[in-house]
Amino acid sequence: MDVTQGVLAGDTRAIARAITWVENGDSRGAELIRCVYGSTGRAYIVGLTGSPGAGKSTLVARLAGLLAAKGHKVGILAVDPSSPFSGGAILGDRVRMFDVALARNVYIRSMGTRGATGGLNRTTRLAVRILDAAGFDWILVETVGAGQSEVDVHDVAYTTVVVMAPGMGDDIQAMKAGIMEIGDLFVINKADREGADRAATQIESILQLSMATGWHPPVLKVSAEQNTGVDRVIEAIEQHRSYLVQSGQLDVLKVRMAKLDVLEILKARLVDMTKTQLDRPAVQAELNKVVNRQSDPYTLADSIFEQSWRKT
Amino acid sequence: MDVTQGVLAGDTRAIARAITWVENGDSRGAELIRCVYGSTGRAYIVGLTGSPGAGKSTLVARLAGLLAAKGHKVGILAVDPSSPFSGGAILGDRVRMFDVALARNVYIRSMGTRGATGGLNRTTRLAVRILDAAGFDWILVETVGAGQSEVDVHDVAYTTVVVMAPGMGDDIQAMKAGIMEIGDLFVINKADREGADRAATQIESILQLSMATGWHPPVLKVSAEQNTGVDRVIEAIEQHRSYLVQSGQLDVLKVRMAKLDVLEILKARLVDMTKTQLDRPAVQAELNKVVNRQSDPYTLADSIFEQSWRKT
Repeated sequence: MDVTQGVLAGDTRAIARAITWVENGDSRGAELIRCVYGSTGRAYIVGLTGSPGAGKSTLVARLAGLLAAKGHKVGILAVDPSSPFSGGAILGDRVRMFDVALARNVYIRSMGTRGATGGLNRTTRLAVRILDAAGFDWILVETVGAGQSEVDVHDVAYTTVVVMAPGMGDDIQAMKAGIMEIGDLFVINKADREGADRAATQIESILQLSMATGWHPPVLKVSAEQNTGVDRVIEAIEQHRSYLVQSGQLDVLKVRMAKLDVLEILKARLVDMTKTQLDRPAVQAELNKVVNRQSDPYTLADSIFEQSWRKT
Repeated sequence: MDVTQGVLAGDTRAIARAITWVENGDSRGAELIRCVYGSTGRAYIVGLTGSPGAGKSTLVARLAGLLAAKGHKVGILAVDPSSPFSGGAILGDRVRMFDVALARNVYIRSMGTRGATGGLNRTTRLAVRILDAAGFDWILVETVGAGQSEVDVHDVAYTTVVVMAPGMGDDIQAMKAGIMEIGDLFVINKADREGADRAATQIESILQLSMATGWHPPVLKVSAEQNTGVDRVIEAIEQHRSYLVQSGQLDVLKVRMAKLDVLEILKARLVDMTKTQLDRPAVQAELNKVVNRQSDPYTLADSIFEQSWRKT
């Protein structure tokens, strides 16, 4: 069975291989995406973000467990380098989750940060497509909080869950840093701890100031560790999904996702081409002028741009 | 006094304004860099990287204090979102350092993560150029460890200092994740703690396996908190600098830096152009085909690439 067929059949070894191709910039990855893209668009993609220590991984594990128990196939992409799953980037492709009963229906992959800067955004998007083509009903993407990761989860997922824990000093900072705008759903994890109610009230009062119409992000108190309230998170995600479908927003999001896929692919290609350009002998002379401060990088960038980019 | 003149005169308000322009993608930032680039190339750029909790910020503060006491002007760019300096991204441009005696000769700026993904690499590079033009003798760039930040400090600095603390579980992982290759100098911080000797021995034995010729990265035990051993870090940086100068490697690095400056500027421009392309009506129809899975993002990316990128 070749890798493309394997992915379409949901074979985990083929999936792992395909994601590695995409990570390494192997052209077989691009070929595979072309072939399987027609089978994508069915999975529901949920992003989970929040500060390290908020308990995202435990929550992800619980959500996956509940969804798998309902008979769904769940793919998990851990993009957070501080995630306990991320050992997998070094230890191997697949990590056993600590409390997922139905591991057979759950696939976990941590996205390594090897490869070019900016590449993680592209590889995460393409890994989502691969899991989608492989027939996963749900794809959970775990990332660290806004601005702490290359990957903006809001650009990857249909529903973005912001996970917080009470008494974490950086929560207020996180709110200011724009994380409030991206949450479709807020989870106060570790809700058995002191300060959970206050944190929930704070978030609700900030949300009330927002001018957003249509969807009002719920704030849920959960203890992933003790497995309380996790079912309500799934309910809220389902409600948000229904809202997106009924309001027509899901279609808008799907266009946006396709656009971002194209953008990331083009970006990688243009960066490659630009690197090739910069290695050309004619450019070397210009570069030496920049080094000697007879020119500047903007002037050289202008010149390369004019030569390479067609006015359309 | 206009901002360009202000930067060249070392005026901190002008510097802050200029960096903000660069961060916001304001065209005045590009104009400014063009004007001041001729005055750059004099500063010595040191990158400091390591896991959160290794005590990078304290070490940076100590180094800056010692350098300032010797009469040097020191600019600090904090790119680590978990850095205590980074409150500055929210609270204001300039944060008072906690133990820098000669604050007048030290300028601190935390680089915000607002703006486009991948942008932090560009803005950090350009902020370094601005500080360089402003007459800072030393520029210290603080980032989180390899793969945990968008910014690869090795691409920004002449000397890269890897900061570790004993007993941190992730050190071994960090070593495997490629941080060993980028260090010109290893600092075991918090060396008064148990395990410092073992950590130093571990790193030294890994370094001995390396095939590198020329420079052999020293491993230094330091307590930034207690201010012991920090002078030896500066000595080691000076030794590495001498090595780079005498071996001709500094010139090679300077060409590389100029190239990366051009690359980042071009990248930002090409991404902007690509986004504009994707918004064109003709592309919208193609995009809808991707959404409907009659096409795929690679095919559309190919087509836009062919139309836009001139074969040279």
